[in-house]
Amino acid sequence: MKIFGDSGSGNCYKIKLLAALLPCCLAALLEIQHEWIHVDILAGGTQTPEFLNKNPNGKIPVVELADGRCLSESNAIINFLASGSSLVSSDPYEYAKVQQWQFFEQYSHEPFIALARSIAKYLGLPDDRRAEYESKQEGGHKALRIMEEQLQQTPYLTGGQLSTADISLYAYTHVAEEGGFDLQSYPAVRQWLNLIQSEPKYVGM
Amino acid sequence: MKIFGDSGSGNCYKIKLLAALLPCCLAALLEIQHEWIHVDILAGGTQTPEFLNKNPNGKIPVVELADGRCLSESNAIINFLASGSSLVSSDPYEYAKVQQWQFFEQYSHEPFIALARSIAKYLGLPDDRRAEYESKQEGGHKALRIMEEQLQQTPYLTGGQLSTADISLYAYTHVAEEGGFDLQSYPAVRQWLNLIQSEPKYVGM
Repeated sequence: MKIFGDSGSGNCYKIKLLAALLPCCLAALLEIQHEWIHVDILAGGTQTPEFLNKNPNGKIPVVELADGRCLSESNAIINFLASGSSLVSSDPYEYAKVQQWQFFEQYSHEPFIALARSIAKYLGLPDDRRAEYESKQEGGHKALRIMEEQLQQTPYLTGGQLSTADISLYAYTHVAEEGGFDLQSYPAVRQWLNLIQSEPKYVGM
Repeated sequence: MKIFGDSGSGNCYKIKLLAALLPCCLAALLEIQHEWIHVDILAGGTQTPEFLNKNPNGKIPVVELADGRCLSESNAIINFLASGSSLVSSDPYEYAKVQQWQFFEQYSHEPFIALARSIAKYLGLPDDRRAEYESKQEGGHKALRIMEEQLQQTPYLTGGQLSTADISLYAYTHVAEEGGFDLQSYPAVRQWLNLIQSEPKYVGM
């Protein structure tokens, strides 16, 4: 299996973190079977005919299986790689709850927190993007409040156990401060970040 | 089960269409078991303490099960309701492919096509939203091109069979013209719309 990604992207980091946190047998299998291929977005690596053939949407990450079938969208990829493990429940409601948090991440979290971070960290917060950067703060804090509310009640987003939903939300939450989001007012979120970081096989971004 | 929604919302319509297209036994079960509760967004119905208790993100649709557990995010809801049916595969890769299209819908389709439609249809395209409306056209056409490319190859988005991915994408694609998107240049998309509309139990929005 080939994994096309960029180590600076939170969406790609989800796969790296998932691979580290998978139960041993699955992690070992994935470790043997995968090859990480760096794609440079800024140099146009996601817009070549070859890459667009793997994902017509021109986005990383993409996974290419040994038989040539491809899968894109970070959250779909980690759910696939974790299938059969404790990180995705076989109970339909529990699995739907995982997906609920992942759709929340893509619609109500990433477009605010990851985009603000990208403007600040990679573009150096230029004047002509400052208004856009500032417009992202309210939505980002709303997303953090919703996570805080849940994490005041349960140690992980979907209850008592780590799931792919936590990996999806961890990716950009743990670097939210790079987008100007002070996490001091979110104690349960900070506790949850620490909980994930204290996993024995945790890997950083 | 209670379903909280608004019939004008494409995200809520996904549930209505899913319920109609479910195989008989599951459809009958859902029909017996559910009660549709109208929530008026414009009148603040999604921002009451009672509603926010069901979904802290303040968005419809929300499903409340008989035991009080709630589920939000339209795509997670329809995957849950369709679980065990042919509309969601039990094969991990096939199910991940369904999710890939649904994450694409929420990130690369809905924010362009549904938002442009909302500005035109519900707000009457006011002058102060025209620039935003126009900024949505390019992204919307990109999403339609990606669908067209897939549907040139397979009758449904994930292959030869209807899945919840088709229901997710159908919701706003079949009313894309209300957002200013002319579907004439997308023959395979139009054929796919017709294919879904020709389902014997199809219901409109």
